[in-house]
Amino acid sequence: MNEIRVAIIGGGGFMGYAHSLGWALAPITADAGAVVRKAVLVEADEERAKSAAQRLNWEEWSDDWRAVIARDDIDVVDIVTPPGSHAEIAVAALQAGKHVFVEKPISNTLQDAEIMQAAAEKSSSVSQVGFNYRHAAAITLIKNMLDDGTLGHPLQFRAHYTQDVGALGRVLSGWRAKKSAGGSGVTGDIGSHIIDLASYLVGDIESVNAIVGAKNPKSNTAWLSDEERKAGDHLDDAALWMTKFENGAIGSFAATVYASGRKNRLFFELECTGGTVEFDWNHTDEIKLSLVSDDPDKQGFRTITLNENHQDYWYPLGGMGTGYADDASLQLQKFVRAIVEGRPGTPGFAEATRTQRVIEAVMQSADNHQWVAVDEVTA
Amino acid sequence: MNEIRVAIIGGGGFMGYAHSLGWALAPITADAGAVVRKAVLVEADEERAKSAAQRLNWEEWSDDWRAVIARDDIDVVDIVTPPGSHAEIAVAALQAGKHVFVEKPISNTLQDAEIMQAAAEKSSSVSQVGFNYRHAAAITLIKNMLDDGTLGHPLQFRAHYTQDVGALGRVLSGWRAKKSAGGSGVTGDIGSHIIDLASYLVGDIESVNAIVGAKNPKSNTAWLSDEERKAGDHLDDAALWMTKFENGAIGSFAATVYASGRKNRLFFELECTGGTVEFDWNHTDEIKLSLVSDDPDKQGFRTITLNENHQDYWYPLGGMGTGYADDASLQLQKFVRAIVEGRPGTPGFAEATRTQRVIEAVMQSADNHQWVAVDEVTA
Amino acid sequence: MNEIRVAIIGGGGFMGYAHSLGWALAPITADAGAVVRKAVLVEADEERAKSAAQRLNWEEWSDDWRAVIARDDIDVVDIVTPPGSHAEIAVAALQAGKHVFVEKPISNTLQDAEIMQAAAEKSSSVSQVGFNYRHAAAITLIKNMLDDGTLGHPLQFRAHYTQDVGALGRVLSGWRAKKSAGGSGVTGDIGSHIIDLASYLVGDIESVNAIVGAKNPKSNTAWLSDEERKAGDHLDDAALWMTKFENGAIGSFAATVYASGRKNRLFFELECTGGTVEFDWNHTDEIKLSLVSDDPDKQGFRTITLNENHQDYWYPLGGMGTGYADDASLQLQKFVRAIVEGRPGTPGFAEATRTQRVIEAVMQSADNHQWVAVDEVTA
Amino acid sequence: MNEIRVAIIGGGGFMGYAHSLGWALAPITADAGAVVRKAVLVEADEERAKSAAQRLNWEEWSDDWRAVIARDDIDVVDIVTPPGSHAEIAVAALQAGKHVFVEKPISNTLQDAEIMQAAAEKSSSVSQVGFNYRHAAAITLIKNMLDDGTLGHPLQFRAHYTQDVGALGRVLSGWRAKKSAGGSGVTGDIGSHIIDLASYLVGDIESVNAIVGAKNPKSNTAWLSDEERKAGDHLDDAALWMTKFENGAIGSFAATVYASGRKNRLFFELECTGGTVEFDWNHTDEIKLSLVSDDPDKQGFRTITLNENHQDYWYPLGGMGTGYADDASLQLQKFVRAIVEGRPGTPGFAEATRTQRVIEAVMQSADNHQWVAVDEVTA
Repeated sequence: MNEIRVAIIGGGGFMGYAHSLGWALAPITADAGAVVRKAVLVEADEERAKSAAQRLNWEEWSDDWRAVIARDDIDVVDIVTPPGSHAEIAVAALQAGKHVFVEKPISNTLQDAEIMQAAAEKSSSVSQVGFNYRHAAAITLIKNMLDDGTLGHPLQFRAHYTQDVGALGRVLSGWRAKKSAGGSGVTGDIGSHIIDLASYLVGDIESVNAIVGAKNPKSNTAWLSDEERKAGDHLDDAALWMTKFENGAIGSFAATVYASGRKNRLFFELECTGGTVEFDWNHTDEIKLSLVSDDPDKQGFRTITLNENHQDYWYPLGGMGTGYADDASLQLQKFVRAIVEGRPGTPGFAEATRTQRVIEAVMQSADNHQWVAVDEVTA
Repeated sequence: MNEIRVAIIGGGGFMGYAHSLGWALAPITADAGAVVRKAVLVEADEERAKSAAQRLNWEEWSDDWRAVIARDDIDVVDIVTPPGSHAEIAVAALQAGKHVFVEKPISNTLQDAEIMQAAAEKSSSVSQVGFNYRHAAAITLIKNMLDDGTLGHPLQFRAHYTQDVGALGRVLSGWRAKKSAGGSGVTGDIGSHIIDLASYLVGDIESVNAIVGAKNPKSNTAWLSDEERKAGDHLDDAALWMTKFENGAIGSFAATVYASGRKNRLFFELECTGGTVEFDWNHTDEIKLSLVSDDPDKQGFRTITLNENHQDYWYPLGGMGTGYADDASLQLQKFVRAIVEGRPGTPGFAEATRTQRVIEAVMQSADNHQWVAVDEVTA
Repeated sequence: MNEIRVAIIGGGGFMGYAHSLGWALAPITADAGAVVRKAVLVEADEERAKSAAQRLNWEEWSDDWRAVIARDDIDVVDIVTPPGSHAEIAVAALQAGKHVFVEKPISNTLQDAEIMQAAAEKSSSVSQVGFNYRHAAAITLIKNMLDDGTLGHPLQFRAHYTQDVGALGRVLSGWRAKKSAGGSGVTGDIGSHIIDLASYLVGDIESVNAIVGAKNPKSNTAWLSDEERKAGDHLDDAALWMTKFENGAIGSFAATVYASGRKNRLFFELECTGGTVEFDWNHTDEIKLSLVSDDPDKQGFRTITLNENHQDYWYPLGGMGTGYADDASLQLQKFVRAIVEGRPGTPGFAEATRTQRVIEAVMQSADNHQWVAVDEVTA
Repeated sequence: MNEIRVAIIGGGGFMGYAHSLGWALAPITADAGAVVRKAVLVEADEERAKSAAQRLNWEEWSDDWRAVIARDDIDVVDIVTPPGSHAEIAVAALQAGKHVFVEKPISNTLQDAEIMQAAAEKSSSVSQVGFNYRHAAAITLIKNMLDDGTLGHPLQFRAHYTQDVGALGRVLSGWRAKKSAGGSGVTGDIGSHIIDLASYLVGDIESVNAIVGAKNPKSNTAWLSDEERKAGDHLDDAALWMTKFENGAIGSFAATVYASGRKNRLFFELECTGGTVEFDWNHTDEIKLSLVSDDPDKQGFRTITLNENHQDYWYPLGGMGTGYADDASLQLQKFVRAIVEGRPGTPGFAEATRTQRVIEAVMQSADNHQWVAVDEVTA
């Protein structure tokens, strides 16, 4: 079996922790065709690098990402730094001939994303962006039912990603708190996941129309005026947008951190000509499905608990239960398989750049109060 | 106790049936202060009037609504005809000094609604429009928690009213099928209920931005072009709109008859500074409530089953179960109480006219692809 | 159409209220073939009779049930007095040639039930006992799927009826508080409903094994000893029992008023060779159904919302919502139809007597800590 | 930090896979105070040992468990062989001075369990049995609310563990199919988990009363007679039992593999004087909680999604999602912490032997149709 040696850049934070879980499970659970070695963990501060590497079970540590990228014995560079530094590291890693995995969002700006996309196109390496939710077995099941015609043509998609951290007064800190470093707030942070899922399942988004509200930090109740919002370095913490998809479907999206009681809840429902499907990340191993073809007196939403009949569910018995770690591992399993089999990552840099373009369109629409065509957005 | 004698106009259809259930329960269950008599049922066709009156237990029947309105022994005129005829009958009844209950929507056009509003303002009678869902005990509970400060300031409201009749290929017939008679399709038919609830609970809607799609009757998958939609007499059967409320809250709405598996499902969730509340008509006797003030380790959505501690829940024991008939009765109970106590109906013609103005704004926005300010809409 | 004139005995309490709702809806909603008149309401105290009759819209009132039973213009006697007086009134009414509807449980003792059964067998009148839940459209749907083979052979039935009134410290008062008047506590009061449903859906119960605990009124935590329980006039407020059914299925039952958060929750799940079905009265209009015959990758519990495709659902559109009043009306509709068509009531006195025999077996098993065969229980 | 080296005996099957996942996550996620090395995987067949070790990322493999136990560089022996061989291996490992983790049930017979308990009592090593579900963060939350008085005194516990493998006709094979090797069927296999949880949360079980049914393999509908069941080597595949707890609480249990639609569903509800709590393994990261102390008009079941405020939930944000692998890791984390801190495992061999005694009592009661006192059961 192949051996793949990974270096993780910025591994001392939460995403380092999450990816370490993913890499720990991947070699066991996957048939991706390679044994993975957690080789080097990189952090700017050496003490922090050492401590994280020991706790997270990486073989070595370093405080110099450039030196690590230059090493011959590293096959994969896994980038989990803040989005503002993704482009520099990813481009360097690609140029060094490494396969590159980048945590989402691909970058803070469309400009950076386009640079990364160009570098990936010039390279023969595999590149992938960490939109992890699309790899959950439940999403694979829905995708398969769209591809094989079970669900028919998509008509209406409604999604929201809601959290309660703002409602509880937990203020963002560090780079996440500033628009200049953290980018587009909830739209880029959590909204990007539902844009990725929409693109993956429903199809390309043609145009968007948005309300983006940055809450006044001095008040829990009043919204900033347009002028205040544009002037400041505030991150938006609540957003609504509607979309028209290229295939004629329509969509409605929401992202907020002011939803009391919602614990990292990614939810969507998708109505199609053949049925409706519903997914809630808080019940990771379930989908709800209604089929038009069911007998009229027995029609209703089936709660399907994932089981051994479903692709990407890796236990021999349904209802064992999977979670974030399993999902983190699944996305890495697919990345590893892409490397072993010489296929593109999913989503690759091009697809993730398009998602970045939709985020930009949302921000522009919020500013100019107009429908914005995604293809006309420029970096 | 007072006795109130009711004439129902157009009572042979479904709404005649529904209102008859409501009138049957009202005298029993309410303390509204009046005994109600189901006096006369009117239908244009005499045979139909007779048959319905017997089946629905009305004392008399008639095929001449003008004659019935002229009778001295009638106190209340309950109008359940198609919306295109509401204005003529309601204005005549008000002029004859009757209290008037009109099934929603108040009318097909804003012009008609304004005429009705003017007639009501000139009259000393009670007028009310049948937005029944706002009278459910669950809605009263939410309203009370907004009024007493439990929920704090509204931030984001997301609602949808979804049905599967279109998905199942049940084509609308009669007046409901034509824009010229049935008005604004799903927006006016079911969407009006969530606009009414939003106005009642969250506050006045300032502006709207909409996508309204009339499905091509020849195809289950393709949407009409703007031109085709405007040119035809098609009713729209799916719509999305976003709103800004005057108090700074934002909203997202959907209405569709193409949602497989959804059986008359009116759903909303409302995020406020003090908590989140969720309601689903399919579970009429429940609300889900999360409170920011709950202990962090015990915070989560409470499923509150209505019980004897709640206003407008009329059984001595929680969980007995109420449904559409109970709700129909509750709205009539409030109408009767308004008559007995000399207070306005809820919603009265003025409030229902504003809802009609929002519907118009939705339709205009769908046509011109712009945000439309509700106050600037003209009839 | 036939006219049926009803006298209600003991109509001033909650069940008078509930049956009045039922009688109010029945003539409207049913095609049972008769117009029902709420003729006379009887209460021992005349003032109370008058007040209730006016509020509940009965034509007349009386304080003398014997006189009312003797009247020629009364067709139906509806008995909602405490169970200790059911036998006397029911037998008198049957002997007077009236059709008799008795609220459940049929009586306090098996002896009384057998007397009533004998009187019904001698009479040509229709007799029925108010086990209302079996008439819900959801139960009809399950019954039909058992009868037509969809569900296959019953294997295991688990039911509980839970309330929170004891948990909240609401002490029973009046006749309900004493074993001598109120009978067998939770087993007879709420447990009888799940025994009735089990018999109706699964089949006759062969033997039972029970734990019945009467809580010490002085303490919220300690259970009475066997001796204390037998010695006192305490009602049991929590019970568990297992059953073997004659067809080989097995069952588990619970009834309690000490279930915090449960609002009149009647719940069961039934596993059969062809599938599993689940019902929760708090979601009256739904069943959950899993079918062994479904495709393995699409197998799961369907939440079926009752609709126009289902027998006993009386609205033209699914998801309108029904509740306790509708159910009360459905059971009276069936009683009226039995009268009009000359068929037996459901359940009639014989079937309800067997349910009473199961209750007796539960109480005996709790006393002697043995399996008790239902057929060997004597009055 | 300490290093702990593990040998897994019987690691080529599903439990080897599951424990490997657990060991892979443990060093990362725990603060148990030790780095774990997956040192040796043992299988009777060398090829199988090698293949599993490579796939599951163990450093070495072997076909000789006795030789491995004799090695000085092994600290922990993790036994995942069929239960019939647990006693021999565990006793040998304890005698060799190793810490021993045994997959549940502790053994096939009470006699074996008592031998293991005696060996553990003589040893200074840590012993633990793999009742994994009690380590889920949701169970820890419930346990804490019982310990700190939030829930008050337990009154009634109802649990069931249901699967659909029998309903789907998936026949057990290998040692699992025979009573002589696989022990007590569903009671020991899945029922043991709910007995462990009941003992852990509610308290010691005093006596039991059971129905155990071994399905006739020739028929999907008929149950074996008592004689046939006792005579054969059939495993029972459905069971019901009631219990009295030593603290006065009462309980009802069910285990079956004939529950269509149930995917490894472990469910219980526990009513206490202070509230009710509900848990469903299919929604691993949730509990439902009703508190008597809540305001009457806001009382209802809270769905609490586990988050950073809860012990044993290891992500920094609620709702990330955990599953079987996380739970497997949590139980090993606790085992490691017991080793590092010199405390007993949970549950240790004594506690697991008592659970085995309850299983025996269930089997005896099913045979003799009597209540069986757990303390009077002999091996």
